[in-house]
Amino acid sequence: MYIGIDLGGTNIAAGLVDEMGQVLFKHSVPTKPERGAAAIVEDMAALVRHFEEKAEDPSEIKGIGIGIPGISNPHNGNVLACVNLGWYDFPLMELLASHTSLPIFISNDATVAAVAELEVSEMGKYHNAVMLTLGTGVGGGVMMDGHMVHGHHGIASEIGHMKVGDGLYQCGCGTFGCLETFCSSKAIIHYANHLLETTEQASVLRSIPSSDIDGEKIFTAAKAGDALADKVVERMVKYLSIGIINVISVVDPEVVLLGGGLSMAGEYLLNRVRVETEKLKFFKSAPIADIHLAKLQNDAGIIGAALYAKLELETQ
Amino acid sequence: MYIGIDLGGTNIAAGLVDEMGQVLFKHSVPTKPERGAAAIVEDMAALVRHFEEKAEDPSEIKGIGIGIPGISNPHNGNVLACVNLGWYDFPLMELLASHTSLPIFISNDATVAAVAELEVSEMGKYHNAVMLTLGTGVGGGVMMDGHMVHGHHGIASEIGHMKVGDGLYQCGCGTFGCLETFCSSKAIIHYANHLLETTEQASVLRSIPSSDIDGEKIFTAAKAGDALADKVVERMVKYLSIGIINVISVVDPEVVLLGGGLSMAGEYLLNRVRVETEKLKFFKSAPIADIHLAKLQNDAGIIGAALYAKLELETQ
Repeated sequence: MYIGIDLGGTNIAAGLVDEMGQVLFKHSVPTKPERGAAAIVEDMAALVRHFEEKAEDPSEIKGIGIGIPGISNPHNGNVLACVNLGWYDFPLMELLASHTSLPIFISNDATVAAVAELEVSEMGKYHNAVMLTLGTGVGGGVMMDGHMVHGHHGIASEIGHMKVGDGLYQCGCGTFGCLETFCSSKAIIHYANHLLETTEQASVLRSIPSSDIDGEKIFTAAKAGDALADKVVERMVKYLSIGIINVISVVDPEVVLLGGGLSMAGEYLLNRVRVETEKLKFFKSAPIADIHLAKLQNDAGIIGAALYAKLELETQ
Repeated sequence: MYIGIDLGGTNIAAGLVDEMGQVLFKHSVPTKPERGAAAIVEDMAALVRHFEEKAEDPSEIKGIGIGIPGISNPHNGNVLACVNLGWYDFPLMELLASHTSLPIFISNDATVAAVAELEVSEMGKYHNAVMLTLGTGVGGGVMMDGHMVHGHHGIASEIGHMKVGDGLYQCGCGTFGCLETFCSSKAIIHYANHLLETTEQASVLRSIPSSDIDGEKIFTAAKAGDALADKVVERMVKYLSIGIINVISVVDPEVVLLGGGLSMAGEYLLNRVRVETEKLKFFKSAPIADIHLAKLQNDAGIIGAALYAKLELETQ
């Protein structure tokens, strides 16, 4: 058994998870970042104690995994940057370790979401895989030889910040051209509004207040044949495919999984991405990674964090 | 001891190499691709026998490494594509194995050049590293956890085919926008001629016949303050830095090495690339890979191929 903690800007969701990724117990408390980091660490420690009391045999709990909305130093477990929480070079592992003797493993939230997908939905059949989470931003998880890749400075798998073109707006990271400024829900909403404001093209999206346009409405319109929405999806697909091909040029995984809210566009999105990546692939005669949709599930953040601890303990 | 074979379009260069990467004996024969693949394999087998005869104790030869100018299937050792030799899905490992009982390891020539650089010039101090070879094309070698990355289909480390912008010409791989169409000697010669033809800008390069312009002349002119040559270098540096940042976003190595003919531009190129990557880096507060020049050496193809066999045997 493992404790998985999904540290978000709104809630700290946690659970006791078995070896197969089943959640045995779960509990969550509000994050309230304004309280300061020490109170959040106290709450995380209390959650750990809670599950130790709940567990039939607490000695069977082997470790704690934590998914954070940011990056961490793989050498000492310090949170390098967690913009939502205002944490920079914060010694999360050291502070939590003063409350528990269990080994603690910290990773990025998109990376642990990839672990949930690969280990539970895909039943551990891939050892070289990449998952892209297409949400408000774009997150990534890279697995190689069964191990999640964090890199030397803790900034591997940050595929959302790959430069893929000349972007329309500055990314939250401070630079331009990041994949997430083309392929996140924020990006496609921004581009849809840009087209609505700068062109006269007819679109069902004009009947919706600008602030109500979201990823789902854009995809619904595109599927129904709306030309402006189609242009928005086309741009997203183009740059997403460049991102996928670029990841392939570095690590060449067996499979690329697309998850996150925008992946709910389903086969419609998948088929367009498959056509575009086929056009972009180098070495026409060589096969490349299959591209699949992630089978999104509840509690992926908790399960992924817990199984991330399991993966790390097994490969130490 | 290991036998390293550097299979090129002109010569098959080979050597007997010790554990430290010292070449004990070497020999080469012309490739003459027009003879057909079987004759080339026969010559490779003869080179293996030659070194077995030369070795003081042939039983100390542990394996054979081969660097090929193309890609190979990591599961069966078939050459997937070797454009210069006209080989496609050619069973190189199987055919050579019928001549020797030594284990055989096949990899890309830029990948084995990275092995020579990392294991000999850098004395094995990095376990997570990337090398970019800036030659006629752009090749790559990615090392993670001390192991060269080939990927599931044999097309990892093909960083030269990462899409980084809208290119001016079609890459040899059949697509547009590949890093090597911006950062190889072919690319900068092409762009220099493009500027000479499409602008009136004064340049010392106008005093040289168009067909004599090469990478060295472009860098010499840029260093001397020639504005047109500077523009060519600026474009190369911009896209090279995008390529470096993109590799970092996936695997975040400890070091990025720049090798190949264009890296002879030295500190001048290195300093410009360092300034540009610093501008492009995401998470401003987190450190990223050091960027160094490779210490180019003779026989890197032979040494790298031999030590690639060593690395593979040690990590099996």
